[in-house]
Amino acid sequence: MHDTTPMNGAESVVRSLHGAGVRVCFANPGTSEMQFVDALDRTGLLRCVLALFEGVATGAADGYARMAQGPAVTLLHLAPGLANAGANMHNARKARAPMVNLVGDHAVRHRGHDAPLTADVEGAAAPFSDWVRTATSAAGFAADAMDALGAAMSRPNRVATLVAPADLGWDAGGVVAPPPPPPAFAALDAEAVSRAAEMLGPDTVILTSGRVLETPEAVAQLQGIAVKTGARIMAPTSNRRFDRGAGRAGIARVPYPIGLALEALSPFRKAVLVETVPPVAFFAYPGRPSLLLPEGCEVLTLSGLDGDGPAAVAALADRAGAGAVVAETARPEAPPPGRITPAALAAAVAQALPANAIVVDESISGGRDVWGATQGAAPHSWISLTGGAIGDGIPLALGAAVACPDRPVLCLQADGSAMYTIQGLWSQAREGTNVTTVILSNGTYEILKNELFAVGANPGRSALDMLDLDRPRLDFVAIARGMGVPGRRIEDAAELCTAIADAMAEPGPYLIEAVM
Amino acid sequence: MHDTTPMNGAESVVRSLHGAGVRVCFANPGTSEMQFVDALDRTGLLRCVLALFEGVATGAADGYARMAQGPAVTLLHLAPGLANAGANMHNARKARAPMVNLVGDHAVRHRGHDAPLTADVEGAAAPFSDWVRTATSAAGFAADAMDALGAAMSRPNRVATLVAPADLGWDAGGVVAPPPPPPAFAALDAEAVSRAAEMLGPDTVILTSGRVLETPEAVAQLQGIAVKTGARIMAPTSNRRFDRGAGRAGIARVPYPIGLALEALSPFRKAVLVETVPPVAFFAYPGRPSLLLPEGCEVLTLSGLDGDGPAAVAALADRAGAGAVVAETARPEAPPPGRITPAALAAAVAQALPANAIVVDESISGGRDVWGATQGAAPHSWISLTGGAIGDGIPLALGAAVACPDRPVLCLQADGSAMYTIQGLWSQAREGTNVTTVILSNGTYEILKNELFAVGANPGRSALDMLDLDRPRLDFVAIARGMGVPGRRIEDAAELCTAIADAMAEPGPYLIEAVM
Repeated sequence: MHDTTPMNGAESVVRSLHGAGVRVCFANPGTSEMQFVDALDRTGLLRCVLALFEGVATGAADGYARMAQGPAVTLLHLAPGLANAGANMHNARKARAPMVNLVGDHAVRHRGHDAPLTADVEGAAAPFSDWVRTATSAAGFAADAMDALGAAMSRPNRVATLVAPADLGWDAGGVVAPPPPPPAFAALDAEAVSRAAEMLGPDTVILTSGRVLETPEAVAQLQGIAVKTGARIMAPTSNRRFDRGAGRAGIARVPYPIGLALEALSPFRKAVLVETVPPVAFFAYPGRPSLLLPEGCEVLTLSGLDGDGPAAVAALADRAGAGAVVAETARPEAPPPGRITPAALAAAVAQALPANAIVVDESISGGRDVWGATQGAAPHSWISLTGGAIGDGIPLALGAAVACPDRPVLCLQADGSAMYTIQGLWSQAREGTNVTTVILSNGTYEILKNELFAVGANPGRSALDMLDLDRPRLDFVAIARGMGVPGRRIEDAAELCTAIADAMAEPGPYLIEAVM
Repeated sequence: MHDTTPMNGAESVVRSLHGAGVRVCFANPGTSEMQFVDALDRTGLLRCVLALFEGVATGAADGYARMAQGPAVTLLHLAPGLANAGANMHNARKARAPMVNLVGDHAVRHRGHDAPLTADVEGAAAPFSDWVRTATSAAGFAADAMDALGAAMSRPNRVATLVAPADLGWDAGGVVAPPPPPPAFAALDAEAVSRAAEMLGPDTVILTSGRVLETPEAVAQLQGIAVKTGARIMAPTSNRRFDRGAGRAGIARVPYPIGLALEALSPFRKAVLVETVPPVAFFAYPGRPSLLLPEGCEVLTLSGLDGDGPAAVAALADRAGAGAVVAETARPEAPPPGRITPAALAAAVAQALPANAIVVDESISGGRDVWGATQGAAPHSWISLTGGAIGDGIPLALGAAVACPDRPVLCLQADGSAMYTIQGLWSQAREGTNVTTVILSNGTYEILKNELFAVGANPGRSALDMLDLDRPRLDFVAIARGMGVPGRRIEDAAELCTAIADAMAEPGPYLIEAVM
């Protein structure tokens, strides 16, 4: 221990993070963070997961936070590094995942000189963070880090970014700071419970997300309310995490395509919200509304984003006299030999999924049938792209596997999206994570072709060419091998089913390029 | 043509860009840019180069702008896409390369609803742009784009970002706008020329960059001034572009390592600046200054960043009575068979480089000897990482090759840095560019190990492990093959020399993993 030697700012932060329960740091450091690398090395208190690109570090931190249900910490380098990290900070923020980013900046005296790497670090952090601060002294640095951690763990969880000039890390005078106080939920409003109970009926939808979906008992109670009152239960299109599968109640999601989303919500005159907000269309389209609930729909927030959703559900079930209900869904048959269609992919996944697996969903268009089919699959956690910034699947899978080393991870990954953070495969190999990546290889940004039609275009060859990925064809098996991940290319649905099951049963990462 | 049909905003922008001389668009579009994809398709006016990651698009635009000496245009998607683009916007900005980024945002009416992809687009643009605006009407959209182009082409060149809500693209009422006025240089200060002439002597350094280095006559005139007066000529560590090699005068660069940089500049009592600013250390280090010129050094700006550097040099040479001087440097011998050391790499490159090639330098530590050796190589343009945000080499090479299809491109690429924008190899294959990428494969962030020692650390095993890339080893030949680029791994210096020459003589991209 270093009790008798003067402690620098970096070491005080590392020791404080450890004291607050942090155990892992997802890192892509540069020169301005060398004091942290040194402190992490000397103390041995945190496990460092190295990423070859910052977006891998933040995406992995998001996956870690979702599965560990605790804060994830990253170590990043200056404004351009933070920019590289931004897209997956955005996804984490939209997931309301607790994340602390430590970002090195130039030493205070160096910042006015417009050095090559000088840029506005706080400015780069702001669009993708809920909380931003720049530390100003070695003595206060650890306390700032604990404030960042407190912000990340508040209700709802947040993305907090602490900028750290390099000299604060190397200056002596670091002081270990106590952990932040535990976060409190907003109190449950008894009157809202009464009003929600009165609203329940066949023209009512209960929309829920957040911690409710991470609590199978709460979902079963919602299903009980549905059976008792005729109300419908739905979740947003994207959610931080959903613990589901056989033995657990299912919930429909609001569909992604604007037409289907409006249709799914059209029957409802009343909506009760539990840990979510009124659903919004992903994009605006000519002649379509942005808000998805029908005009004039009465909306009641039973529990806000800062509330205890499962407690609110329990209170509502109690008031409605409803018990927990789990309707069993059959596990689909394994797919017969043949082409890998979306339905065959869904059947293969549902069959092959072992108990207690984690499914990471960035399947975009090709995986549209998997959600429905896996309601009858072995119990699993489902985590997915929340902020629409593609390039999150491979990193999410890395972080989930680091958080839960005993749970196999299946990453359903669209090909176009995979290429944004393909470097994450290397970190999967380095960490020996049991991640099976299934690349849904259709050689196109299929979803953008649909979007092109949705805006009223009548695309010609060069427009479609801009959305095609097959000139040249991406060989994901070769790319993965180049990063230390073995794999194979599969064109048959029955083989795919066996290959997924085999890969998940084996330790270490594996990649399957499923030709669709 | 569409003269008789109402034109939407997107088409008016495409037609105006074409009218102003823009011919290429580096694109990674999403839903909010589908109107542009449609307009590009229907008009057929711009060549679209598709990137699989936004940082490839902006890095390629930078390389294009540097070699075309004209504006480059990108098409990007919302705040997270802009974040992905940010690091290479930063490098372009530090290079003072002319770049216009068109970034789609949600439709105006959709922006208040916190949709999954909603984030502050202008905020994400600001840290990496010199000019930011959000268009507000379809009718004014093209005029905004021409303002952006004018900002990009001003002196010095700038990075301009125009945010475009999706509905402005699809709304009718687009109006084609005239090109911006040609940019003007700041006038040359005759008094500054006189004062600079008086300062010339052995204790004077002339520091120059920008357009001077792109004008071999100006560099030769500077060399003549040096011969005549004893003054020394130096360039900053990183520059937008330098046209150099046999038959052209050479210039020393300020070294990157802080100790060598201070030593190189220590003899000078006077400094004359031509299209550059006083040199600054890359990073701050404990006990070292940030500004590199000796304390008390007299500094005169002969030509600012907004001036005509070559004209200033011509005036100074005239005043000093100096002619143009080119000192011939011998081309190094080809390296003998043996291990690929930095010196052997340098000799191989200098030997193999064909006339009129473009060298892209993101070689970081392993390529340190190449600069010196190539002064005697066939004439070439040298472009390099300017903002310190690694992950620029592969994209720069792509863009340079698109700008100059008749000039072979050699990309000297450090392995760790290569992984940030490795997706650019696919675009190189798709566009059939004659880029030969040499990966300097040492399996480590070597430069960070030096930085770790520079901050006074005594690193242990886990610190060094965090800077190593060899667990697992990256197989760049496999990765490249997976993206359609053939290649081979080479461990012998003589073989390397032959392989570089062969690859540059053949059309299409090729990758050599040089094991160092």
